[in-house]
Amino acid sequence: MAEAGLAARVLAGEVRAAARLMREVDDHTAAAEHELRQLYPHTGRARIIGITGNPGAGKSTVVDQLIERYRAAGKKVGVVCIDPTSPFSGGAILGDRIRMQRHATDPGVFIRSLATRGHLGGLSRSTSDIVAVLDAMGMDVVIVETVGVGQDEVEVVSLSHTAVVVTVPGMGDDIQAIKAGILEIADVLVINKADREGADRAERDLIAMLHLRSMDAPEVEIIRTVASSGGGIPELVAAIARFEARATAARVLEARGRARARAQLVELMTAKLLEAAEAALAGQGGLDALAARVAQRTQDPYGAADEVVRALLARGSGPA
Amino acid sequence: MAEAGLAARVLAGEVRAAARLMREVDDHTAAAEHELRQLYPHTGRARIIGITGNPGAGKSTVVDQLIERYRAAGKKVGVVCIDPTSPFSGGAILGDRIRMQRHATDPGVFIRSLATRGHLGGLSRSTSDIVAVLDAMGMDVVIVETVGVGQDEVEVVSLSHTAVVVTVPGMGDDIQAIKAGILEIADVLVINKADREGADRAERDLIAMLHLRSMDAPEVEIIRTVASSGGGIPELVAAIARFEARATAARVLEARGRARARAQLVELMTAKLLEAAEAALAGQGGLDALAARVAQRTQDPYGAADEVVRALLARGSGPA
Repeated sequence: MAEAGLAARVLAGEVRAAARLMREVDDHTAAAEHELRQLYPHTGRARIIGITGNPGAGKSTVVDQLIERYRAAGKKVGVVCIDPTSPFSGGAILGDRIRMQRHATDPGVFIRSLATRGHLGGLSRSTSDIVAVLDAMGMDVVIVETVGVGQDEVEVVSLSHTAVVVTVPGMGDDIQAIKAGILEIADVLVINKADREGADRAERDLIAMLHLRSMDAPEVEIIRTVASSGGGIPELVAAIARFEARATAARVLEARGRARARAQLVELMTAKLLEAAEAALAGQGGLDALAARVAQRTQDPYGAADEVVRALLARGSGPA
Repeated sequence: MAEAGLAARVLAGEVRAAARLMREVDDHTAAAEHELRQLYPHTGRARIIGITGNPGAGKSTVVDQLIERYRAAGKKVGVVCIDPTSPFSGGAILGDRIRMQRHATDPGVFIRSLATRGHLGGLSRSTSDIVAVLDAMGMDVVIVETVGVGQDEVEVVSLSHTAVVVTVPGMGDDIQAIKAGILEIADVLVINKADREGADRAERDLIAMLHLRSMDAPEVEIIRTVASSGGGIPELVAAIARFEARATAARVLEARGRARARAQLVELMTAKLLEAAEAALAGQGGLDALAARVAQRTQDPYGAADEVVRALLARGSGPA
């Protein structure tokens, strides 16, 4: 149980209270939900910037440099790193990530990793909860960076106010395939490591691919950066601001806010309904027993799912 | 509505019927579910090999070579490519993927792409359905290859009979982070492009990382391949067979079968419950109206989710 007033302390910008609440959020405690409900009316002010892109493109270095620019402009910055953490690697404590830690002692910066493996209740929900805490504690900008480029991660980034896709010159076929999958969500495209050979060709390729997008799609700016030395980062910050201005005018950000809320709702409902399903099946060994029958082919999964849904809805007819 | 006897035609190994059913599966039609229920008791014979790994590691080339070896051994091979397809790239019709198409005219090979973007009902469910069709039509081996390495994709591969993780020598920091996230699911590790400089070092690094895994973890073989010329592929096929033999003896495959069934059940139930939730909310504008109130901060998402769950369970108390 969280101590009284955790939400109030987060709203006052207290870092330790925010860290504490985030741990409760990770554990999906009832206390966390109680505090998040109190925070919710005070959220919606932070600008959310999503960052995704090819592995090896230097996303973390771009994030590190964005933090520096936004801090220089007097903005408080929260960062959520969505990370396929391995229990035996102890998290991605690697080159770029270490670099970002130079901001750890800055009270205007709060960096939080969100492990995607084994987390309960879905990525969209977990991200929303962490972003809500950062938003409520007064962060002006919240950067959501994904290490992986799977479907869930790409969806989370696509629901940001601005989705930034980072690529690099001269990657192979397989990378092109991934790029194709994520390019369509880009509001701003970055060619990082643009001092490398092939930057011109990469830009031509990206422009050609963008031309294949729907004619209705808004103009996507392509920004060249050399994030390791900060090159191009002011231009990237400006491009993000221009996109936000255009998207606000076109009411795109409003629509994304609704889509974000819907994704969060669906994940919350799903978690609650699965809990109810386990309870409804408790007398018959739970979902595991049902799964075992399906695995043995004594029951088909479609019929089994129908059975659970029926049991769940019937449960509502008994006394609450 | 599917024509009568589609399931029977799939069981007879009719390719056109299988292709037709897969289209129905994509659209999540009631007819598809009806046919899949009939097929289900006839599934469970195919060996499922999952392939994932770093983008650029040459996974598709490895798959292409595995097809060739299994065909040479007289086995029928199905392939599911899980692919973050973009509507404007028209799918990943790229280098390696084109190479795999040389098997398209072989009646003993069936290759099917599964787009991960915008698909309904979850990746685990969609993959299970496609694998079930390939299994029922008599494929001896079904290879599930992921282009992306997100959480969902990695989970799907981890539930295969054998999970093969493909890596290459000499990749950077960011790649290491992803590798850490997927290494733990590897039953067999492949160092592809092993004729490149750095293969020895890559193997030493992998062994060091494997030593960090739990002491209980079964031995993971590391196989070097040069898939572009077929080098090391017979050794990979043998390593997969050895893992399957060990895992069968240790009843690991049985446990994975139950986990696979559970994941599929959860996704089917979720889809059905969400449908029921939309129906329960139909009078109040559905989930979209609720999401709009959440986005406007006039309602918090946790309370809104509770409201839906209550409405859904209450619905069971009325007349069916």
